[in-house]
Amino acid sequence: MKLNIEQSKLAEILETAYLAISPKPTDPILGNILLIANEDGIVSATGTNLNLTINTTTTANVETSGQVALPAKLLTDTINNVRGEITLEVENQTCIITHNSGKCRLIGGKPDEFPTLPKGENPIEINLSAKKLQAALEGTLYCTNGDETKLVLTGVNFKIDTNKWQAASTNGHKLALVTGILDSEYSDPIDFTVPGKSLSELNKILSQSADTSVCNILLSNKTIEFSLPNTKVISRLLEGEYPKINSLIPRTFEYEFTLERKGFESALKRVSYLAERKQKVVKILWELEATQATLYTEATDIGDAVDSVLMKPGTSNLENISIGLNIDYLIEGLKHISTDEIVVQCNKPTQPVIICPMGGLLNQLYLVMPVEIKQGFENKSTPSKTTTAEKTPEALETTETTVVAELEEVINNTQTSQTESNGETSEVETSTAEAKASNKSKPSSRTRAKKEAASV
Amino acid sequence: MKLNIEQSKLAEILETAYLAISPKPTDPILGNILLIANEDGIVSATGTNLNLTINTTTTANVETSGQVALPAKLLTDTINNVRGEITLEVENQTCIITHNSGKCRLIGGKPDEFPTLPKGENPIEINLSAKKLQAALEGTLYCTNGDETKLVLTGVNFKIDTNKWQAASTNGHKLALVTGILDSEYSDPIDFTVPGKSLSELNKILSQSADTSVCNILLSNKTIEFSLPNTKVISRLLEGEYPKINSLIPRTFEYEFTLERKGFESALKRVSYLAERKQKVVKILWELEATQATLYTEATDIGDAVDSVLMKPGTSNLENISIGLNIDYLIEGLKHISTDEIVVQCNKPTQPVIICPMGGLLNQLYLVMPVEIKQGFENKSTPSKTTTAEKTPEALETTETTVVAELEEVINNTQTSQTESNGETSEVETSTAEAKASNKSKPSSRTRAKKEAASV
Repeated sequence: MKLNIEQSKLAEILETAYLAISPKPTDPILGNILLIANEDGIVSATGTNLNLTINTTTTANVETSGQVALPAKLLTDTINNVRGEITLEVENQTCIITHNSGKCRLIGGKPDEFPTLPKGENPIEINLSAKKLQAALEGTLYCTNGDETKLVLTGVNFKIDTNKWQAASTNGHKLALVTGILDSEYSDPIDFTVPGKSLSELNKILSQSADTSVCNILLSNKTIEFSLPNTKVISRLLEGEYPKINSLIPRTFEYEFTLERKGFESALKRVSYLAERKQKVVKILWELEATQATLYTEATDIGDAVDSVLMKPGTSNLENISIGLNIDYLIEGLKHISTDEIVVQCNKPTQPVIICPMGGLLNQLYLVMPVEIKQGFENKSTPSKTTTAEKTPEALETTETTVVAELEEVINNTQTSQTESNGETSEVETSTAEAKASNKSKPSSRTRAKKEAASV
Repeated sequence: MKLNIEQSKLAEILETAYLAISPKPTDPILGNILLIANEDGIVSATGTNLNLTINTTTTANVETSGQVALPAKLLTDTINNVRGEITLEVENQTCIITHNSGKCRLIGGKPDEFPTLPKGENPIEINLSAKKLQAALEGTLYCTNGDETKLVLTGVNFKIDTNKWQAASTNGHKLALVTGILDSEYSDPIDFTVPGKSLSELNKILSQSADTSVCNILLSNKTIEFSLPNTKVISRLLEGEYPKINSLIPRTFEYEFTLERKGFESALKRVSYLAERKQKVVKILWELEATQATLYTEATDIGDAVDSVLMKPGTSNLENISIGLNIDYLIEGLKHISTDEIVVQCNKPTQPVIICPMGGLLNQLYLVMPVEIKQGFENKSTPSKTTTAEKTPEALETTETTVVAELEEVINNTQTSQTESNGETSEVETSTAEAKASNKSKPSSRTRAKKEAASV
């Protein structure tokens, strides 16, 4: 193998393939990037950690075709620090890299030992705008569970029903859902869960893609392949049924408020320092007549804070409502919304709160569970106002995390059923909670049994 | 106390005073910033960790004078997140901060418990351009020893002799020295060492100061005060005698090379990845006729690298010279030089290498110890060239770290004598190694005894 290539082109494919490399590979060959040069002047770079494989190509002046597996970090670091035209010359697993001020000799692994690209059987093809897929990942990845023992919850769940698709994630305390419309229709419902780690890397690649790019998705039994111009991202799927989260999202709301996202985020940040000693809880009083949301922290020995932001209520003939929320969860949700205005929807102080962008590329929703506010909740910064404004002390007193309990129950049951099915052959579940309810599609007896267990 | 102030002005003095606050204060009161408002419309903020005190002032609309000690982090974070005009109203250690969208109530400590500003007796006054002082700190702080048990070596040592001043630091492996000329002359030599931690904070403040600012320094027995417009930085001095490092710096050089700083740094970086397994050692062959410096890493099972940079030799009738150096130390030294070109000076492969900026605001010098290069040193990237270029295999073979030993010996002896004097009353040493040699000034018998011990 011998080729000449511009540094920037080689650096770009190496950086992309490197995204799939594990910092501590289980097998030494997985610490390498496989470079293949063919006579048509195409050079491809592949990195894999077995769960995730990234393959990307560029053009070069290939004198002799061939392949070489070179240490990923060493190669990427070295190429990132040279400039101009580079020559790669490979002989017996050794690659001499010549650049304008020197040479380096890298000794690689055996290219034959490098895993071949995973190939799924009878794939279902789905096409989605790269920018929409990226928006879906931005809107859901932050709610996946980082704990690897949580299995299916470490991923983002996708469902397709006719021409509607959705991406969802939850860690038991917060939940994100993104929905959209496909160009094609699918007769059978589709349901699969992709590891959050694979999607994080895909998200980086998508953020570099052109606005008009289309991502071609090939879904097989155990793997999924995302194809972009010059780059393929292939991931293992997560086995097991994803919790039926759609049923947890309220469909109707008594209250709806529109407010400015950045202003709300700033107010939350300002009171957050004084909420530190109270598990970052803020009591938000939505004042319908005053068209403002007032944020209170509970008084401690370091003090307390009160802040307010203007809002537009969707209703006005109701009583004001106070809801206790975790500031960090709220701020995290707001960070993943890109529109200037947001809509907050809720019913009772014991029920989930929904935050949506006002407009945006896709339908996006963030669900956060309320926190119980004890009756003794006290804020001394504005003592008179707080007392008069609190119209529903009884409701506040009894506020409980019933919804959290509900969500956690569903999730725990899912984990149990997953553990059971862990040793079995995986099977992509092809029915969504909604699809089941409306279409009465018939899942297999095993799947139904699991679902019944999950709904206990 | 009651005052109105623009957020940006209050945020600025809080950020500055906060630099002196310890993240884990030994006494709760030290977790506070002391705010004092007087009737002339001056507001001062003070933070201290007892070793370092920072006091800074600004103007405000003061309605009622007074003082308050408020939790430093909480106050700084809160003020950084509000905008516009702010009102502070203090009653009984409680401060109500009112801003345009809310209020917060902070409960502080007792202002009487806050330490008073340290005041040195009979200070010596020194004036130095703020920008030159900053350049001196940039040029020396990175060579201080971060290990707190190293006592005097954790600081930067300053010496003044008539109108010449110098700042120096060393950790036993590398050494930095900056020298300059003062406007005034001092009849007695001056010698003091300031903790690196204090100087790091001073450096941040200096970087914000105007180009024309003068730093007024008041040096007392145990403390030093750096005064800039509106800001005072007061630090404890380090006790004990600083090693006589000036005698370790060669005065004459057989070799001198001028080269481009960034190009040299890039070449070092490029070969550094392949030097990883060999303690980051690079062999630099200074080729006088070819006017280039060639960098070799030793061959390992992952490969090796060779790189070169152009250089201008100051001499040409000598033989080429190869010196082994640690890449990280070299890169660190180059990072703290700001000029485009540098001068490298050396004598034998066993003797220290000096790197200086070509030009610049001050005379600056970085000394780095060579590393032994074994005779078997091998680089396969350019086998023929390496063999022919190596003119002095005998010299290389016997290369030893004698200079490191010398520097370490001086430093170790200093530590011993320091440990002895630790319990004693501190005394600012007022003689430099050079001053002693030339002026034959007479230190006290105790001091002389210590110095003799140090030179064993």
